[in-house]
Amino acid sequence: MIRLIFGFALILLNSLALSGQPEKPQQPNIILFLVDDMGWMDTSQPFGDSVMALNRKFHTPNMERMAREGLLFHQAYANPVCTPTRTTLISGMSAARTHITNWTSVTPGQPTDFKDDVLEAPRWNVSGLSTTNDPQTYSCGKPLPQLLKDAGYFTIHVGKAHWGSLGTRGSDPMNLGFVVNIAGSSLGHPQSYYGEQNFGNMPGKTTFNAVPDLQAYYGKDTFLTEALTQKAMAAMDFPIRNKNPFFLYLGHYAVHLPIQADRRYIDKYLAAGLDAREAGYASMIEGMDKSLGDIMDYLKAKGIEKNTVIIFMSDNGGLANTGRGGARNTQNLPLRAGKGSPYEGGIRIPMMIKWPGVTRPGTKTNTYVSAEDFYPTVLEIAGIRSPVRVDGKSYVPVLKDPAKTKNDRPLLFHYPNRWTANEDEGYAWSGAMRLGNWKIVYLMKQQKLELYDIEKDPGEQHDLSGSDPRKLKELARLWTRELKQRGAQMPRWKDSGKPVAWPDALAH
Amino acid sequence: MIRLIFGFALILLNSLALSGQPEKPQQPNIILFLVDDMGWMDTSQPFGDSVMALNRKFHTPNMERMAREGLLFHQAYANPVCTPTRTTLISGMSAARTHITNWTSVTPGQPTDFKDDVLEAPRWNVSGLSTTNDPQTYSCGKPLPQLLKDAGYFTIHVGKAHWGSLGTRGSDPMNLGFVVNIAGSSLGHPQSYYGEQNFGNMPGKTTFNAVPDLQAYYGKDTFLTEALTQKAMAAMDFPIRNKNPFFLYLGHYAVHLPIQADRRYIDKYLAAGLDAREAGYASMIEGMDKSLGDIMDYLKAKGIEKNTVIIFMSDNGGLANTGRGGARNTQNLPLRAGKGSPYEGGIRIPMMIKWPGVTRPGTKTNTYVSAEDFYPTVLEIAGIRSPVRVDGKSYVPVLKDPAKTKNDRPLLFHYPNRWTANEDEGYAWSGAMRLGNWKIVYLMKQQKLELYDIEKDPGEQHDLSGSDPRKLKELARLWTRELKQRGAQMPRWKDSGKPVAWPDALAH
Repeated sequence: MIRLIFGFALILLNSLALSGQPEKPQQPNIILFLVDDMGWMDTSQPFGDSVMALNRKFHTPNMERMAREGLLFHQAYANPVCTPTRTTLISGMSAARTHITNWTSVTPGQPTDFKDDVLEAPRWNVSGLSTTNDPQTYSCGKPLPQLLKDAGYFTIHVGKAHWGSLGTRGSDPMNLGFVVNIAGSSLGHPQSYYGEQNFGNMPGKTTFNAVPDLQAYYGKDTFLTEALTQKAMAAMDFPIRNKNPFFLYLGHYAVHLPIQADRRYIDKYLAAGLDAREAGYASMIEGMDKSLGDIMDYLKAKGIEKNTVIIFMSDNGGLANTGRGGARNTQNLPLRAGKGSPYEGGIRIPMMIKWPGVTRPGTKTNTYVSAEDFYPTVLEIAGIRSPVRVDGKSYVPVLKDPAKTKNDRPLLFHYPNRWTANEDEGYAWSGAMRLGNWKIVYLMKQQKLELYDIEKDPGEQHDLSGSDPRKLKELARLWTRELKQRGAQMPRWKDSGKPVAWPDALAH
Repeated sequence: MIRLIFGFALILLNSLALSGQPEKPQQPNIILFLVDDMGWMDTSQPFGDSVMALNRKFHTPNMERMAREGLLFHQAYANPVCTPTRTTLISGMSAARTHITNWTSVTPGQPTDFKDDVLEAPRWNVSGLSTTNDPQTYSCGKPLPQLLKDAGYFTIHVGKAHWGSLGTRGSDPMNLGFVVNIAGSSLGHPQSYYGEQNFGNMPGKTTFNAVPDLQAYYGKDTFLTEALTQKAMAAMDFPIRNKNPFFLYLGHYAVHLPIQADRRYIDKYLAAGLDAREAGYASMIEGMDKSLGDIMDYLKAKGIEKNTVIIFMSDNGGLANTGRGGARNTQNLPLRAGKGSPYEGGIRIPMMIKWPGVTRPGTKTNTYVSAEDFYPTVLEIAGIRSPVRVDGKSYVPVLKDPAKTKNDRPLLFHYPNRWTANEDEGYAWSGAMRLGNWKIVYLMKQQKLELYDIEKDPGEQHDLSGSDPRKLKELARLWTRELKQRGAQMPRWKDSGKPVAWPDALAH
């Protein structure tokens, strides 16, 4: 009898427990710490196998700390320029598929391609990503933040958005699923990093690049990076206090042009003999690094460090074309070229992930990943099933076992556009594909294919297209198939009106 | 034994229940629908005892609907101008105490008082309200949104903020406890209501009055009122879906100057023979009314209508000084004068509250209330104990029984400033106090007190100061005491440097 009553009481207790808060696995908080235009070498934390010359130029103690606490990717990739990477991050789709292959202007309907006498850019989605069927945008029905929000995540956007032009739904992060938006709009680089200059908001001088939402810092000596960091921490307050899982997309405007010294750090770089421009750049890097440290400290202070995933990455390679100090194309050495190019300097990015309990402290991986993989990865971390088939692939297995996975899928970098006046080093009309140790590069205007063994020759100095025509042909065929599968666009020859040939037409 | 085991099981069950989600009374959602510069007569819904001439000029079907569904206040009051009311709303403190007695400029440290040869404004808090000890702001340690947020409310700000100047913490609603801020900053009136004009954001022409955060509407024919309404509905989505109580502060920029026709409604007013300016104004009123209807419909569609309190009010009386069509001081008839004046046209506001289950449909009250009462009322509705003693008094008892309460406390309207070029009708250096049926007015420059019986003479046409000196003296004494208790400031005479006399010095 007594046993019976005990049993009854236990059933009651069990049913009570079931009627309470559902016992679903805890959703971790997810932070994307996205730096703009930061190169693979712009840090004292080596992303190669050893400390190299440029690593000694920078001071990024918090990146070093994150590397000690998490997993570092030797070979992480993004698109050659910003909007394609950013739209890929929240759509999961390749730029070849979204047709957002170049950076978007604040002005809707306005292509940003540099004028060219020989080639004409395809009709790409010049206004960016949206959630409507606007013919000038890529229609992403359920962007990543929307899926996270639908699953109960408190989604925060702080900083640079740059998903769509003015007047499109995609210009407003709230239309893409963010609950909170601070300082994000159609603009791609800040009019000013200085609070003293109101971040560009100066009547008579204000352009569309003036950064919104930071009025409390106007007239103060707060650097933009610092202001955004403080706002990000303030925005995390509500979900932390209410035990709501959150997704923070902290898109720093730094270290995009204009190079403006972060006065907190400039002196040491000038003292080290850097010219004003490079010292300014290094100070912006260190300001960004301070932000990373502040965010990590904040998580610790709030007691949520152990349940928060931090993904650190850049949106493309470092600038090496114009606008930096020193000789052109030296800023990412040993990597070749820089932002805007499909050579490694333009697409290889610094990337680290810390997922306490999953990634192991101080580990590194040679598995390559691309910006397309971010979307399925975040969904898997959050326990959300993707509603669409995306081009990327979740790298959660790599996080769990960085040694196990293989580099056996093609990564595409498609840039059928012309970025700037310079046409050397792949800065115009170009593309690339990585597969295993191999990389094939297409210089469209020159109608030239190149082949590199990236493991042996990360600096892309030894073109093997002549010595290994079979490999070239094999890769060109695969690449062409992959491009066609994604519905990729090609530029057209102005004289004939015909599209540029697919890569396989050049490999015999 | 069996009884003992049952007892044990019950104790277990109880302790389990206690450890789960606390069983606190459900917190209702609260919406403040705040219209800017809307007069007591600017609506087809009469706030007086009967339909009067000006009521026939306007079409506000959704205000009529709200009156049918909720409680209407015949005698609700605010300050003569906007910032004092807005800072009072979220601090609970009288403008006499906050020393924010005039509207604040976007420029910090800049008084907005019109130049005067005889009187000088006191050193009021010209930069508005903040949460710091900045000497030019009123330090409100825990503004209302912060208290609500601390209690678990999801706090949303949409529209006009105007709590503090650029560079102060108060310029950013997020610093005052809002989780989400859309379009609120230091600005007090919009550069443009038109999406076609990017709400003022036009490079080369952008001023500090350009409205931020609405890029998705740039170049479109969306009126500002509509854009803010859509954004407010989008912002409510997260808390509704997550069953989180929310506080929405929807501060419409309408119907402040500039008068710009809301093209959806303008035709009927032109057809009715109104001049372009007044037709434009009436169209802006109707656009605002449409917003109210949309919000009510949205709550119904989302199934949260029954648990949502809506408070409709304006921040001061209707404009009747300059900038409107028709003869001056006729726009609020039968009330005297308008915005900027302590006569009824400047301080009596349209106000209605709908709290399903508490207020009864289609009821009205003669109990007077003021802007100061909003803070303690909202706290009581939310079940939060006020951390400070405020000047206002909760009107929750009025909501429960609109007939029972008495008009037996003094309401103060303190305006020791000069607003515009016009000095007639109390538009400069003035104040008033309401007590019971009585109202005493102080015209400081003229050194004159006036006395009105508001119940018999709401148009303030019969000054009784000469015929009832005893009542005048009694009120002047009380008023002086109340002003001193609040630490009120007075202007100074420029020639002597001495402050203007307190009211009791003029009543013998």
